Amino acid sequence: MSESKSSSSVLENPADARVLKVAILGFGTVGASVARILCDVQPRGLELTHIFNRNVARKRVDWLSCPVMWSEDAEQVLHSDAGIIVELAGGLDPAGKWIRTALEAGKSVVTANKKLIAAHGVELEQLAASRGGQLLYGAAVAGGIPVIPGLRQGLAGDKCNRIEGILNGTCNFILSKMEAGAEFAEALQEAQRLGFAEADPTEDVAGYDARAKLTILSRIALGAEIEFEQVPAGSIVPIGAIDFAYARELKCTIRQISRAQLSSESSGAGTGIPRVQATVGPMLVPEASPFAWSRGTENMVIVTGKYGGDTVFSGHGAGGHPTAVAVVSDLMAMAHGSRAVAVASQRATVTGDLSLRHYIRFIVKDRPGIVAEIAGGLARQGINIGALLQRPGYPEDRLPFVVTVEPCSTSALKRALDEVGKLDCLIEAPLQLQILEPESPIG
Amino acid sequence: MSESKSSSSVLENPADARVLKVAILGFGTVGASVARILCDVQPRGLELTHIFNRNVARKRVDWLSCPVMWSEDAEQVLHSDAGIIVELAGGLDPAGKWIRTALEAGKSVVTANKKLIAAHGVELEQLAASRGGQLLYGAAVAGGIPVIPGLRQGLAGDKCNRIEGILNGTCNFILSKMEAGAEFAEALQEAQRLGFAEADPTEDVAGYDARAKLTILSRIALGAEIEFEQVPAGSIVPIGAIDFAYARELKCTIRQISRAQLSSESSGAGTGIPRVQATVGPMLVPEASPFAWSRGTENMVIVTGKYGGDTVFSGHGAGGHPTAVAVVSDLMAMAHGSRAVAVASQRATVTGDLSLRHYIRFIVKDRPGIVAEIAGGLARQGINIGALLQRPGYPEDRLPFVVTVEPCSTSALKRALDEVGKLDCLIEAPLQLQILEPESPIG
Repeated sequence: MSESKSSSSVLENPADARVLKVAILGFGTVGASVARILCDVQPRGLELTHIFNRNVARKRVDWLSCPVMWSEDAEQVLHSDAGIIVELAGGLDPAGKWIRTALEAGKSVVTANKKLIAAHGVELEQLAASRGGQLLYGAAVAGGIPVIPGLRQGLAGDKCNRIEGILNGTCNFILSKMEAGAEFAEALQEAQRLGFAEADPTEDVAGYDARAKLTILSRIALGAEIEFEQVPAGSIVPIGAIDFAYARELKCTIRQISRAQLSSESSGAGTGIPRVQATVGPMLVPEASPFAWSRGTENMVIVTGKYGGDTVFSGHGAGGHPTAVAVVSDLMAMAHGSRAVAVASQRATVTGDLSLRHYIRFIVKDRPGIVAEIAGGLARQGINIGALLQRPGYPEDRLPFVVTVEPCSTSALKRALDEVGKLDCLIEAPLQLQILEPESPIG
Repeated sequence: MSESKSSSSVLENPADARVLKVAILGFGTVGASVARILCDVQPRGLELTHIFNRNVARKRVDWLSCPVMWSEDAEQVLHSDAGIIVELAGGLDPAGKWIRTALEAGKSVVTANKKLIAAHGVELEQLAASRGGQLLYGAAVAGGIPVIPGLRQGLAGDKCNRIEGILNGTCNFILSKMEAGAEFAEALQEAQRLGFAEADPTEDVAGYDARAKLTILSRIALGAEIEFEQVPAGSIVPIGAIDFAYARELKCTIRQISRAQLSSESSGAGTGIPRVQATVGPMLVPEASPFAWSRGTENMVIVTGKYGGDTVFSGHGAGGHPTAVAVVSDLMAMAHGSRAVAVASQRATVTGDLSLRHYIRFIVKDRPGIVAEIAGGLARQGINIGALLQRPGYPEDRLPFVVTVEPCSTSALKRALDEVGKLDCLIEAPLQLQILEPESPIG
């Protein structure tokens, strides 16, 4: 074995000898972690030169190993000699404007901005390619877990037809706390105290954050460009401790799952436009599923390929340091002249309609005949009951019980529950959750 | 969203417009899978043009979608106009000679040859870089699981200090069958019948295959070039059903684990040469560890980084199709002009000495005083017993019992067992296994 640094030959290539100047826009938790890793790892070919933040004075740190220009003028930084802009401000605006300005000037951009990439990724990648720059966003999905590079570099040779994941660490923290016995409100408060949830947790708990990430993965893994607003998103707020108790009886637990799979049917006769079955929301997952192992703020992604079968990625999906690892890895890929494998993608339509077993939890004021009425309502939509579960020890005027139904389409179930929901005995609207099968059918 | 193929812009770049001709050397299971995927996926910029195999006539297939030159003359193919050589013959020779010839001619090479890359990877990468070609070997470790691309593209920005994995699907198949109740011989026979194990299974069961893969990962993840012969490899052959029974009492199971971590001590005072603690062999793993979830021929790798924490990759580590996915992904990376991020590496020394809890299983002819004598032998090396387990129902003249010991160095334990092993009551040499802690210390 050689004693020399074996990689030196690559950087001796004249094309790589230049040093790329890096500007960070947004010096919050992730931005500071990026700067810290750049100072610690000192990747060759990269130099941190500019940091932008509003009211930058309060952000200044004294541990940087190189001189940096601190600025509160984004335009000044965008028009500086920095060759790579790291956008960490988040949101659609002004981040989108900054990224367009940088790409139009031929600069490259690294971002963790899932919302922007979900909404405008295709257009921004085209802009980057047309001006000779690159746009990388490995940090936008699953933080430090290399799902995007893994898909682009390591699974590009497969035909991926399904992607499923735990893409939101906040929901996973709350649901795994609830699995261990907490009620929703209590778990949310703890997440907020630990900095894992915002004061307004809507983006996370309602599934909006996860569906932006699913939209990005749909394009990279399935080659299907979907509109994130079309993906049905279910909230985890209605999930109660009672649902974990019933899930356990079914040898399951509950996780927020994001899934997208290519449908065997195209979007309309002869259109050739692919259709993607996609949903985000709380789901029953079997205890034997890898998803059940995922606890705390972890993320997990399972990619199913025609040739490679299932590949699982898991790890820290959020937090300053893990997210910064993904950002710095993208920067290093740029510095080494690496080019991401561009996966061909095309516009696709979305349906949330999947034929799956479902879990339905009712809360009723007990009286004779309720089960018959509910079963009748389901039967009229052709839906068969699989199991009926009723745990003892609850008051008759607020009695929870659960029905599981054989595989049926989400839309047929919705029609049935619209009818059943009118029954006078119901105290709350029924809660329905999809049940993730160990081997869900594709197509 | 655009209706156009969003990646087309990349291939409109004139540098990418050329088509790379691909030659496959070795048309066995993996080679045929590579050809099949190339025909199915039809990645742009790649064209299969040559297939070499000894006695090629018996290998010919009729389903290729493009005209191919079949050859049984490797030199002819190596000197053809193919720009990329896919080496799937395996072994050090003549594969090494072929790869050198191709790289010297400025061609690029994709290989799944773990043995060759473990032994000569550094030298061959330097050769590739010096002649303007590339050498990629994503398929050499963990088959279809994108561990190497994930490390190079997605985790390059972290400082990785440990890598642990289930790297041999044959051992994992055998051990997970034994966990379910089979004896070793029976599990091995089933693996052989299913094509998961060779007629001579030594490479797999003795850990030689896994340590070649660990050697490759050590360089990419830890930047440490180690000699694979220096990594202590333990065999799974002595593991019996009894060990799974005792492991279960300790809330553990048994897996073949390969691990390498950077030691806080360098190889010698002032040398600055890093030291790597590395071992391969059967190990007790807690039931709560992701490794315990891995069953059948699956592979799993856990990378621990200073900033990103633990990242888990798992999936199909072997088999024609998954391995071929990794090969085709490497080919696509070449066709798209992607360049792997070269991680700086340097020569490192290996120690198998780790301070860990250990499991020791004795089989004795029972008589009074045995435990006192064993405990005495351990105590003389400063080793404390943690637990003593003896399951009922075994004959007194062939009595198995188990001792677990508090964290001690592997070398001190070896000295103690050399002494204890001389006791006249022992029917077999004691079996010692490291116990993988949920949070093993690093350093």
